[in-house]
Amino acid sequence: MIAQEHTDALTKVLGDKGVVTRHEDMEAYETGARYDRGSAAAVLRPATTAEVSAAVSYCVRNGIALIPQSGNTGLVSGSTPDASGSEVLLSLDRLTRQFALDLDNRSVRVDAGIRLSELNRRLEEQGLFFPIDLGADPRIGGMIATNTGGSRFLKYGDVRRNTLGMKVVLADEDGTVLDLDCDLRKNNTGVDWKQIFIGTSGAFGIITECVLNLERVPKQTATAFLVPASGAHVLPLLNAMEERLGTNLSAFEGMSKNAIAATFAHVPSLKNPFQGGNVPGYVILAEICRTWAPREGEQSLDAVLEEVLAEIWELEEAPLADAFVGPPHEIWALRHALSEGVKHLGKLIAFDLSFRRGDIMAFCDHMKAEMPDKFPGITVCDFGHIGDGGVHFNLVVAKNSPLMTDSSFEQRLREWVFAVAVEQYGGSFSAEHAIGRRNQAFYDFYTPEKLKEMAGGLKTLTSPGKLGSVRFG
Amino acid sequence: MIAQEHTDALTKVLGDKGVVTRHEDMEAYETGARYDRGSAAAVLRPATTAEVSAAVSYCVRNGIALIPQSGNTGLVSGSTPDASGSEVLLSLDRLTRQFALDLDNRSVRVDAGIRLSELNRRLEEQGLFFPIDLGADPRIGGMIATNTGGSRFLKYGDVRRNTLGMKVVLADEDGTVLDLDCDLRKNNTGVDWKQIFIGTSGAFGIITECVLNLERVPKQTATAFLVPASGAHVLPLLNAMEERLGTNLSAFEGMSKNAIAATFAHVPSLKNPFQGGNVPGYVILAEICRTWAPREGEQSLDAVLEEVLAEIWELEEAPLADAFVGPPHEIWALRHALSEGVKHLGKLIAFDLSFRRGDIMAFCDHMKAEMPDKFPGITVCDFGHIGDGGVHFNLVVAKNSPLMTDSSFEQRLREWVFAVAVEQYGGSFSAEHAIGRRNQAFYDFYTPEKLKEMAGGLKTLTSPGKLGSVRFG
Repeated sequence: MIAQEHTDALTKVLGDKGVVTRHEDMEAYETGARYDRGSAAAVLRPATTAEVSAAVSYCVRNGIALIPQSGNTGLVSGSTPDASGSEVLLSLDRLTRQFALDLDNRSVRVDAGIRLSELNRRLEEQGLFFPIDLGADPRIGGMIATNTGGSRFLKYGDVRRNTLGMKVVLADEDGTVLDLDCDLRKNNTGVDWKQIFIGTSGAFGIITECVLNLERVPKQTATAFLVPASGAHVLPLLNAMEERLGTNLSAFEGMSKNAIAATFAHVPSLKNPFQGGNVPGYVILAEICRTWAPREGEQSLDAVLEEVLAEIWELEEAPLADAFVGPPHEIWALRHALSEGVKHLGKLIAFDLSFRRGDIMAFCDHMKAEMPDKFPGITVCDFGHIGDGGVHFNLVVAKNSPLMTDSSFEQRLREWVFAVAVEQYGGSFSAEHAIGRRNQAFYDFYTPEKLKEMAGGLKTLTSPGKLGSVRFG
Repeated sequence: MIAQEHTDALTKVLGDKGVVTRHEDMEAYETGARYDRGSAAAVLRPATTAEVSAAVSYCVRNGIALIPQSGNTGLVSGSTPDASGSEVLLSLDRLTRQFALDLDNRSVRVDAGIRLSELNRRLEEQGLFFPIDLGADPRIGGMIATNTGGSRFLKYGDVRRNTLGMKVVLADEDGTVLDLDCDLRKNNTGVDWKQIFIGTSGAFGIITECVLNLERVPKQTATAFLVPASGAHVLPLLNAMEERLGTNLSAFEGMSKNAIAATFAHVPSLKNPFQGGNVPGYVILAEICRTWAPREGEQSLDAVLEEVLAEIWELEEAPLADAFVGPPHEIWALRHALSEGVKHLGKLIAFDLSFRRGDIMAFCDHMKAEMPDKFPGITVCDFGHIGDGGVHFNLVVAKNSPLMTDSSFEQRLREWVFAVAVEQYGGSFSAEHAIGRRNQAFYDFYTPEKLKEMAGGLKTLTSPGKLGSVRFG
């Protein structure tokens, strides 16, 4: 619990709405989207960059630890407080005033508290969108601080690619506001400082405003479920699609049989398109798009996709065993239900990994082969973004498994998965969820000493105060 | 001239081919692509990352100043030595051994000395390319250190977007090799350190190897010259094209009448497509592309472009006055000849600016209106990348102008152009050429103190030795 003098001082700065200390009002902020429950000393809710600056300055001067919280949808315990009750949450949820669209520049300037869904709702009538496609509905500040990717990374890239500028409040005694709010696409006049605040979980500063690149909403899309001839044919299939479709290919998502079967079992409204309801060993969701409207006499995009698939069928060593072109909403419905679906099998232990594209399937096969011996009773329900190398390597422990009562296995499991992913396959232990308390130990273990030392130096240069859930350096 | 003991020691490390001290052999390295002629103490030509590290370590321990030089095609005096004769050049021109293509990952790992043309030549038979389209032919290390953009930025972005990883040698006593040579597209496991070496002219470290994202070469393109109804119609025309063509629009380049006329006058082989040879006030080069091969029964891309232009013609307040769809090589030939063409008018003073897209034409009009009063005898020959906000704002002083004998005007001119561009229009004084000796003073003037202080701290953290032509901090 925060001392009354601090509550009073912060209330002077932020107003009554800006300081929350009642337990029942703090609970939603203290509880993570999937994991964790911490205890906050208070929740601050500034409504402007100036208020963030004043609040941060006060906290730094008084040695109060701050945890920035954006949409609180993350999965690595990056934005919830620890159990001590001494950390103060700084929520972005009232930083939502600014929305300045520049149509000629195809960009928008917003406060960091806007939700992704709200941003895209307001852009819809202009035919524009912020092209990061996620299952969750985060606020934009947190999306930048974690550099989210999502299902259409293949075509539009990550948040880093689509962030033109930002304002950042540093955790120093002055609550310095760093004005990096450039709205230019090309600007090479020194260090591009915004890059160090992207993907670093708010440890170096709090993003309060930003300028985002926008893209035109595609006017036509066609989607299909593809069944590769085998796991080894997934990459040849991707290559064959890219060779024929280039940047018109906007998604190439992989789904394992276990993940799909669990989802069909628990979401009865989903249509099962596979023969006799038998789910194949691996399924790809492929989407192609065209950014122009249908033209008279032009082949429909569904027909283009059918033709391309027919060509691939006829290749020697065809990588394809089956394919259905279908309505986008039906096809994406399965993909979007996977996260929920796999949870029903038991206790979910999720890994957000990435690899060179050619290594994804080999890694998953490797793990599936070794899992029964190493961790009997665990089902691998992987799915992910084959097109950009990302895998949501989800493991489910059956409710009746002896592992459920073994408190030590989770740590051993994590160490093993990361060791194989990082050391044997040269992969990443955090593809798009960034660092949080949950994977701090792996940052500490896998980051070379020199880089940790540099990160520590950078922390001193930017935000020497107590800021964020991650210890860099 | 470097002391004999240093030459001997460095020759032990780099071999005879690795150390150049004869004046006639150093001359090409000492001479900039367009401006400047410096004097080097020696030229070092390491062939591996380990050799770079050993040479840098020796120089740092002995207080020798190093200037990294890549293709030496830059225009801001970033890679040539000063006149003192005390700086040692470190050339990347022998760092060309590695070329490891990963087709499944659509990436390549190369040494930093490979030329852009050589890289793309070796990728051609795979239907792949590194999608940065430049007039010059730099080496890749320098392209990263200056974050080049080019003519197809609109579709493929800059070098930053297309760099997955790198190895960097720091200028510290050990010549520390920083291993950032990730070949992953998604990796959020801490600070993305490679970002600080991109666009900072080699001041924080020498890039010796890198992993690059590759794209599929488009299989169809269509190009046109578009004549906007007026300068004020350039942006409405861009918006109308983007609305109809989205990411199929791969270039939208602007060319002023002065630049075109100078080029036609001096390159007689160019075909002048304009009625009666009269060059319009402003011309756009538009390119659209399709990444799939022509399909039977499908409208040709030329026909699509014709139709889109016909639609735009019929808009109320049509932004278009004239348009010719034509063969890509003829249309690009004019664009590529502009840099040479304008030089024939007199002494060229070049500015590489960028703006919010909506401000480019207003800035150019503003300057054209004020130029005759402020600097009589100067012709504005601007051209550039309207699609991404970049302008090569080229000024030409007639050979018979009194300004040619006025040694002070160039400084006054630069200050005025940058003041209007940066202070009045919120633009950038270096869009894609980065910082070098030539614009150091403007970095010092326009960069906020706090950011300079942070850059100085970063320099100490990374490369405390004397490295690079730019002083950060």
